[in-house]
Amino acid sequence: MTPAVHPESGMRKPETAGGQFVPPNPDYAARVRASFDRQGAMKLIGARLAEVRPGFCSIELPYREDLTQQHGYVHAGIVSAIADSAGGYAGFTLFPADASVLTVEYKLNLIAPAAGDRLLAEAEVVKPGRTLAITRGEVYAETDGKRSLCAIMQQTLIVLAGKADG
Amino acid sequence: MTPAVHPESGMRKPETAGGQFVPPNPDYAARVRASFDRQGAMKLIGARLAEVRPGFCSIELPYREDLTQQHGYVHAGIVSAIADSAGGYAGFTLFPADASVLTVEYKLNLIAPAAGDRLLAEAEVVKPGRTLAITRGEVYAETDGKRSLCAIMQQTLIVLAGKADG
Amino acid sequence: MTPAVHPESGMRKPETAGGQFVPPNPDYAARVRASFDRQGAMKLIGARLAEVRPGFCSIELPYREDLTQQHGYVHAGIVSAIADSAGGYAGFTLFPADASVLTVEYKLNLIAPAAGDRLLAEAEVVKPGRTLAITRGEVYAETDGKRSLCAIMQQTLIVLAGKADG
Amino acid sequence: MTPAVHPESGMRKPETAGGQFVPPNPDYAARVRASFDRQGAMKLIGARLAEVRPGFCSIELPYREDLTQQHGYVHAGIVSAIADSAGGYAGFTLFPADASVLTVEYKLNLIAPAAGDRLLAEAEVVKPGRTLAITRGEVYAETDGKRSLCAIMQQTLIVLAGKADG
Repeated sequence: MTPAVHPESGMRKPETAGGQFVPPNPDYAARVRASFDRQGAMKLIGARLAEVRPGFCSIELPYREDLTQQHGYVHAGIVSAIADSAGGYAGFTLFPADASVLTVEYKLNLIAPAAGDRLLAEAEVVKPGRTLAITRGEVYAETDGKRSLCAIMQQTLIVLAGKADG
Repeated sequence: MTPAVHPESGMRKPETAGGQFVPPNPDYAARVRASFDRQGAMKLIGARLAEVRPGFCSIELPYREDLTQQHGYVHAGIVSAIADSAGGYAGFTLFPADASVLTVEYKLNLIAPAAGDRLLAEAEVVKPGRTLAITRGEVYAETDGKRSLCAIMQQTLIVLAGKADG
Repeated sequence: MTPAVHPESGMRKPETAGGQFVPPNPDYAARVRASFDRQGAMKLIGARLAEVRPGFCSIELPYREDLTQQHGYVHAGIVSAIADSAGGYAGFTLFPADASVLTVEYKLNLIAPAAGDRLLAEAEVVKPGRTLAITRGEVYAETDGKRSLCAIMQQTLIVLAGKADG
Repeated sequence: MTPAVHPESGMRKPETAGGQFVPPNPDYAARVRASFDRQGAMKLIGARLAEVRPGFCSIELPYREDLTQQHGYVHAGIVSAIADSAGGYAGFTLFPADASVLTVEYKLNLIAPAAGDRLLAEAEVVKPGRTLAITRGEVYAETDGKRSLCAIMQQTLIVLAGKADG
């Protein structure tokens, strides 16, 4: 269950309607994993699907030097790649079985250097919908098991009805 | 009347010569190229710095299968990586010689599938400043020399005074 | 016609497909004006519809003290109100006669104090669509006929098919 | 490891007491209320400061017909006005006594019609800083004491050191 107070950052979650989401497709998790495995970009950067639950997805990314910007931190585009995929798949868990997902837009604030042993992107659905879905995400940098917030995202997805996923 | 110097934030317009931005650092282009070459992420994805002018930067990215999302289009995170770097370096051309650049935040709208032979990200400075700089960018998909708009970006940068770039 | 180079800010416009938009509804301008007149908020703040063309809309707002934030500049929310309406009606000019418009989201950068005799919000469609439309907008502050850029916006609209406008 | 002080931007975490923010200015609440009272726009629309705590602010807005867009819902610009002010004052609670606040930018997703007896905007600081502060906000629509989420915001503020607030 998503707690009212976010354990790491102290951020409260906005109230949602009645707690748990019920995915219309019971095979949602297998479907997310199959779709994630088709994302060449996730393989290229070494990202791994960490957790999939109704309305939630997290993706981890071990630090590598070839993912950096000029100061040696992970590049904003790479940070956004895992944040965007986490948000997209959080939304996808709640889509019907015959629909696919595309990102309409997102906004990312980079609030601390993306450094450490690995990054962890977490995203959850704020508002599911028949046509659009809205998510929020956070990216944490982890070192020796301690994590700190390095980016936050707000994202709009579109439900592509009757469109195969891959 | 709106003054040329922002009374609160210290944002100012640089000296202009016929509408053109005049970079305070005459070696701006070499500095951008050196910084770009330190971005491991740009090398990993195969991006190339295309053009650098005062207040402007473009980056090209040949299509590769390992850059894709699940439908075979270039992943939103990769699209944003070149848009973000183009915006950051557009801003960086107008920074003083002893300052570095970081992205504060950006928003990206994906408006058509990122497909084709290559992508081209173009960005330019809308408002330079002493503390912050604002840019806009577009990403085009090119096929057989014909290009179509596939993403637009709006971005905020911060000027890191007295900080080495790499 | 929208010039390639923006006369005030020097901003280039992204290339669009073949120049001029052709509205599916020939009565688009009357429809926009009727809808604008139903916006109580525009009347409250004293905003006036300035210009309506296919894919374009501008709204002017004379300065008033009761529109301000704590420093005496026009409040960001009021700036966004005219930017949002200009973007929404720019999109609406290209909607079919039986559809209505809603804002999905927008992002606004405030880049100079919103002060002067009046504000002018201009917005245009970057990408029209059957389900979504994407716009960009600028807000200018005018004093003695001279204008300067004070905010820029990027916006997503949704086409509400079969929905009456008021 | 991510340091507590951001090496580039000077962003720092304030001293915390059990997860709570400790405002550097003990008179933060009185200062927020005085600043809010200078916002002509808040008076015009009938908004009221509801709650002020370290890193948090909420603003309520009773429904009025003269705040609406064309369908009779509260206009996105009005929704954003209370969200923006709530975010700005959430940040302002953590600013030093000799600093003022300006909004750099924000993004707002409108996820349900802003209708009901009143709206309530809540915002909190995600990341305080010496130069910039990042907030998130939600706007709820309340009817007969039941509330539902109608908008979410992500915002960047700038700390104007040595600037009087009004």
